[in-house]
Amino acid sequence: MQSLTVDLGDRSYPIHIGPGLLGRAELILPHLAARNVAIVSNTTVAPLYMQRLAAPLRAAGVNITEVVLPDGEAFKNLDTLNQVFDALLRARCERKTTLIALGGGVIGDLTGFAAATYLRGVPFIQVPTTLLSQVDSSVGGKTGVNHELGKNMIGAFYQPRLVLADTDTLQTLPDAELAAGLAEVIKYGLIRDLPFLGWLESNMESLVGRDTDALIEAILRSCQNKAEVVAEDEHEGGVRALLNLGHTFGHAIETAAGYGNWLHGHAVAAGTLLAAETSLGLGWISEADVVRVEALFHRAGLPVRAPAYGVERYLDLMAQDKKVEAGRIRFILLKALGEAVVSSAVPPELLQRVLSGRFIQPTA
Amino acid sequence: MQSLTVDLGDRSYPIHIGPGLLGRAELILPHLAARNVAIVSNTTVAPLYMQRLAAPLRAAGVNITEVVLPDGEAFKNLDTLNQVFDALLRARCERKTTLIALGGGVIGDLTGFAAATYLRGVPFIQVPTTLLSQVDSSVGGKTGVNHELGKNMIGAFYQPRLVLADTDTLQTLPDAELAAGLAEVIKYGLIRDLPFLGWLESNMESLVGRDTDALIEAILRSCQNKAEVVAEDEHEGGVRALLNLGHTFGHAIETAAGYGNWLHGHAVAAGTLLAAETSLGLGWISEADVVRVEALFHRAGLPVRAPAYGVERYLDLMAQDKKVEAGRIRFILLKALGEAVVSSAVPPELLQRVLSGRFIQPTA
Repeated sequence: MQSLTVDLGDRSYPIHIGPGLLGRAELILPHLAARNVAIVSNTTVAPLYMQRLAAPLRAAGVNITEVVLPDGEAFKNLDTLNQVFDALLRARCERKTTLIALGGGVIGDLTGFAAATYLRGVPFIQVPTTLLSQVDSSVGGKTGVNHELGKNMIGAFYQPRLVLADTDTLQTLPDAELAAGLAEVIKYGLIRDLPFLGWLESNMESLVGRDTDALIEAILRSCQNKAEVVAEDEHEGGVRALLNLGHTFGHAIETAAGYGNWLHGHAVAAGTLLAAETSLGLGWISEADVVRVEALFHRAGLPVRAPAYGVERYLDLMAQDKKVEAGRIRFILLKALGEAVVSSAVPPELLQRVLSGRFIQPTA
Repeated sequence: MQSLTVDLGDRSYPIHIGPGLLGRAELILPHLAARNVAIVSNTTVAPLYMQRLAAPLRAAGVNITEVVLPDGEAFKNLDTLNQVFDALLRARCERKTTLIALGGGVIGDLTGFAAATYLRGVPFIQVPTTLLSQVDSSVGGKTGVNHELGKNMIGAFYQPRLVLADTDTLQTLPDAELAAGLAEVIKYGLIRDLPFLGWLESNMESLVGRDTDALIEAILRSCQNKAEVVAEDEHEGGVRALLNLGHTFGHAIETAAGYGNWLHGHAVAAGTLLAAETSLGLGWISEADVVRVEALFHRAGLPVRAPAYGVERYLDLMAQDKKVEAGRIRFILLKALGEAVVSSAVPPELLQRVLSGRFIQPTA
């Protein structure tokens, strides 16, 4: 087991990474406010892992309410959130009941938002079961749900008390979801950690082959990178925006395709290549750099072309991005590999050109 | 105009109280993050006051989105919240758009929760237009919505940047709503300010007659009392619970009657008398004290009897209160007039007796 701490003063919390962590109640017990827990999961994850997590806690005298939601990004909305509130209220969960999210990013974001807002806030623990949620959404305190007019438009910053990343859960993950996680892993190399990018180029086959040691190393270094950024800028006033490399384009892809039709990580990969093309057009990185990024995404099993929904549709969707300020779209671009920057100064002709190239016919 | 500051470190904010404040854009402008504002109001208040607030802001170059919701406690729910999000997203409101709540407690609580969660948090200003919201819900940062299984079960602590209490808006308030506000005003005297209780006994006719100077004084002293409590205990770990005198009983009345059928302040008045009876039963206050409290509520035009829904129904509803801890109901009781305390030590026989007396047949 590897561990690190996300340093946020009195809201600091530990992340443990390794095999077999689901069954280790002794890691969880010290973080409970009372012996009452509600575990929120979904219909895919609960049959695999609910009892592995719940049984040792029950054996330790913890009273557990199980809440099982439908699976998928399409259910990350206020209606499903209300289902969680229904369950918590019916079970008479109180202010010291700890909510545990057992699942991927959707479960983590939604359960975190439920924890932030149930009785105006109850304790929260993350048990992410996908690579994407282990390296991204379980670190940083962003919680929330989607709105039909945009992704993650409703939410709160709310920190967990503990994150348990059990690498065993990655063995049952579909290939496409493993790849989606690798997109975010590669992102950390691209935005701020060139040595890590090199390590990924040397170890991509081990990661795709789900070697436990390689996965632990990739998760640890990803979480370290994210934790450093979040500690510096908890509420995304500055440097934290860099974590959104590929996301302005990526969110537009996800929205245009309809939630759930493009996995978030896949959209980020295709979006990152658009950001890389834009950076190339500004003369910041070379064609060789773009090819290098493309090759690494390709080896990870990720798409490197976005669906061709047309320039106008993309511009319209990107104008709704949360990062828009005074009507200007703020892009995260690459000054160099390993060095991302925020820029609003993309010439419209360049944006037009980037959004006209590197596309495939949409399938969804 | 009278002013005070709610002292919460870097989240401190001013409250201004007086006539004609709605039209004074110069009080609002320094608190805006950008010249973009969304004013959320309801179908009762908007026709009376929306333009009085909006016109001077527009004249000062502020871009305004008007959001008008249906009126009433029955609409304080996630569905109406989603209507606010719809309107904000359609108007492309950004992170620096300030949400202004123009209305009573329902609008304030709901708009505050929208501000806390839209794009994970945007700036928020309160313009309360009822006596209840001016003395209570606009101070302290409690925001949220109801759930069919309980009041204010979903929400967040989120502080406004400014509160403007325009006493002119109280002139159009229905008598029953003025009385509802007076219930909370009297509460501050009962829980911690015996001199203020005396002042209220000397000035109740001026207040009921809507004398501006008397109203300003009552609002100021109420807000000062609440601000002191909130500054000491922002997240209701301790002393803040005392503000809930009459509320454990009161919330049960509101829920049993159906939201909106009993005004919150009326339920608090009837609930406070139940708390006073309980305190009398414990030997803490005298029968003369109970009569004194009853007389003051009566002069304010408030009910002093709760509807007779039966002991079991009340006990069941009170067990769902947010203040329940480890299954025990925590009551706010009166050690003396002017001195409230938290107690879980109410003998079941006493509770049974209190819940059997002082009731009227329910009308709703």
